[in-house]
Amino acid sequence: MRMVDLIEKKKAGLEHSEKEIHFIINGYVEDKIPDYQMSAWMMAICFQGLTQKETTILTKEMTYSGEILDLSSIQGIKVDKHSTGGVGDKTSLVLGPLVGACGVPVAKMSGRGLGHTGGTLDKLESIPGLKIEIKKEDFIKQVNDCCFSIIGQNKHLVPADKKMYALRDVTGTVACIPLIASSIMSKKIAAGCDALLLDVKYGNGAFMKTKEEAKKLAQMMIQIGKSLGKDTKATLSNMTQPLGYAIGNSLEVKEAIETLLGNGPDDLLQLCLQSGAQMLIQAKKAKSIKEATQMLKNVIDNHKAFDVLCQMVEAQGGNVEYICHPELFKKAKEIIPIHSLEKGYVKDLKAKPLGLVSMKLGGGRASIEDTIDYSVGLVLNKKIGDYVEKDEILLYVHTNNGLSEELRAEILNAYIIQDEYIEKPILIDEVL
Amino acid sequence: MRMVDLIEKKKAGLEHSEKEIHFIINGYVEDKIPDYQMSAWMMAICFQGLTQKETTILTKEMTYSGEILDLSSIQGIKVDKHSTGGVGDKTSLVLGPLVGACGVPVAKMSGRGLGHTGGTLDKLESIPGLKIEIKKEDFIKQVNDCCFSIIGQNKHLVPADKKMYALRDVTGTVACIPLIASSIMSKKIAAGCDALLLDVKYGNGAFMKTKEEAKKLAQMMIQIGKSLGKDTKATLSNMTQPLGYAIGNSLEVKEAIETLLGNGPDDLLQLCLQSGAQMLIQAKKAKSIKEATQMLKNVIDNHKAFDVLCQMVEAQGGNVEYICHPELFKKAKEIIPIHSLEKGYVKDLKAKPLGLVSMKLGGGRASIEDTIDYSVGLVLNKKIGDYVEKDEILLYVHTNNGLSEELRAEILNAYIIQDEYIEKPILIDEVL
Repeated sequence: MRMVDLIEKKKAGLEHSEKEIHFIINGYVEDKIPDYQMSAWMMAICFQGLTQKETTILTKEMTYSGEILDLSSIQGIKVDKHSTGGVGDKTSLVLGPLVGACGVPVAKMSGRGLGHTGGTLDKLESIPGLKIEIKKEDFIKQVNDCCFSIIGQNKHLVPADKKMYALRDVTGTVACIPLIASSIMSKKIAAGCDALLLDVKYGNGAFMKTKEEAKKLAQMMIQIGKSLGKDTKATLSNMTQPLGYAIGNSLEVKEAIETLLGNGPDDLLQLCLQSGAQMLIQAKKAKSIKEATQMLKNVIDNHKAFDVLCQMVEAQGGNVEYICHPELFKKAKEIIPIHSLEKGYVKDLKAKPLGLVSMKLGGGRASIEDTIDYSVGLVLNKKIGDYVEKDEILLYVHTNNGLSEELRAEILNAYIIQDEYIEKPILIDEVL
Repeated sequence: MRMVDLIEKKKAGLEHSEKEIHFIINGYVEDKIPDYQMSAWMMAICFQGLTQKETTILTKEMTYSGEILDLSSIQGIKVDKHSTGGVGDKTSLVLGPLVGACGVPVAKMSGRGLGHTGGTLDKLESIPGLKIEIKKEDFIKQVNDCCFSIIGQNKHLVPADKKMYALRDVTGTVACIPLIASSIMSKKIAAGCDALLLDVKYGNGAFMKTKEEAKKLAQMMIQIGKSLGKDTKATLSNMTQPLGYAIGNSLEVKEAIETLLGNGPDDLLQLCLQSGAQMLIQAKKAKSIKEATQMLKNVIDNHKAFDVLCQMVEAQGGNVEYICHPELFKKAKEIIPIHSLEKGYVKDLKAKPLGLVSMKLGGGRASIEDTIDYSVGLVLNKKIGDYVEKDEILLYVHTNNGLSEELRAEILNAYIIQDEYIEKPILIDEVL
């Protein structure tokens, strides 16, 4: 078999066999197939696509390119959740304790943020002392003890994805549904879950720009999951505007704590209740969405979910005082309000530019080596559908380095205000 | 400027600016842009194409990536000819002397063969003593003295094409009209001609499979030529079956000599007369095709064309005795006739498999390092439109290593024989 013939085959729009995909992935991981052939093949896939069957085989080959985590010593059905990422997305910090408090073991592996989207690990590390590098035995013990742990990506999982992703990033082949689907699913399956809930976001703040694309990606991942023996569900959610009000690491942790105590933003709470209810059903802890939602509301009301977060933070070496008294989190030097230049209804609130502003304030990374300032970020005061008077505050900028005119303009440009009334958007509009 | 953004731009089907193409070609030649980005970009071009403007700019950038040959000390309008290559294509060996004998300076740079197509240089080197590595001054003097010289590709011309072609060869990006057009035209323009005649072949023995593709390629190259100040014409010719009867190096030289003496195969003669007439008009030696054709016939009849070949061979160190007495060429050990298994009219005679058989006999290269056996090859006895009896000879195999059953089957499969009468195909069916 020669790689050049397989590239020609995909270029001509033909379907690869299992043997061919094995040859490609195995050869690439073992450095037998060079980057320049792999990038040409992936570009051909961007145009010709992969069939469902090819994508499933690709996912399997990528998954088995490295270690598979064995979580069988954790009791119960382990349901993992994956969000395709967005701005202000702190759902993992809320959902983990919520679902854990209902008795579902949450053994989660998370990543760091890059570009306009934040990463769960970075948010967690804003809690002083908290460690995300834990031994596998301690991780399993912690999940068995308090039903919740989040750790960093194991470096030995899915080496094929690491190599392919680095190449896609510099060859214009990131935006490609079958490559995205196999990248996500190979990592989730290697991380050892029994069932999986996918939160596929769309809109200008997300990787998928339209609902149609998001649906296509979700359906492809559901089929992969089913073919590889994992119960997989997906929700499609709108990421036109940021989720909740807070963008930035410790600001988001504080909002997650408030949400667990029942005082969080409505959109974040609704998303967590809907996703959490799905997960309880997948874990066979509830029979209906209604029953599951009630269980989740109960663990908010009786503070059991909050207690799970405290236990998790304590187990991972974090200072629980910060969870009980969020006012202890170090504040930014300045909190600068941004006033509206006009009056009317907020028609649009662009998530991506706001994510980039938070990154530029120091709250995120432009490149992997950057360090993070946990205290900075944005706190929204107005979201889509809200009425705003001229000079009324749109949002607050938490900064340690002032605010340049450029960033101020980017913030103002992210808000589109109109005279006509507009409804607040629906967050989750489909469950697949 | 970042290469990844330019890849994304082409992937999205947008047009590159002159600056962008300069950045890419310059960066690639200087090793600032890695192969894996270049191959992804070229694969995106295979799907999205390049506009005429982009292709012309690309050609210019490639041309100026290296040396440009200065042929201004050669008197007269220098007309170069380029054939997109085929099986049994010895036109350069006939056309050069023919046109040279009419007073048009032919200063030709040629390549070696690879795969199923032979190379003019390999054919020439079957003449004992003949050298294709000549100093530039001697090359120019020879063209001024006897109007004809063929030398090997100058290593300093178009380094961009050398690097890009090697990469295309292993990344499935060879078959792509704008990349083919810029590769051919950059080499021709760097080789210093004033006018150019392109012989674009189509059919199963050629790179372009259909007439439509061939026409598209021809039109693109004509536009490039005109934009860069070179008078450019093109003929579209059918390469369904091999040209002439001989396939293989010294066998083809012998056929070229016979053709110059007026005893060659009709299809080869017609193609050379038609192409030659175009070249005489481009060189302003004749005003009409009729006048030009008569001039060419005259130099066959009075042996002036043959004399030019002899002068050229002598000037390049070759043994002229071989040209005057072609029976001196070393013969293969065995000449094996292949008999037809059925009777009927030859409907199809596939050039590519026959080219591959000749290569496997030792007459061509599977890879660049292979050495060539000049004496082996095939001599056809029946071509499309000919009637053949059962057991009548289809062709002769000249071999030094017998003939395997596999090769015999490949030869027989190349002939498609049917009961119904079929006309002989027209060779050149359009001049652009």
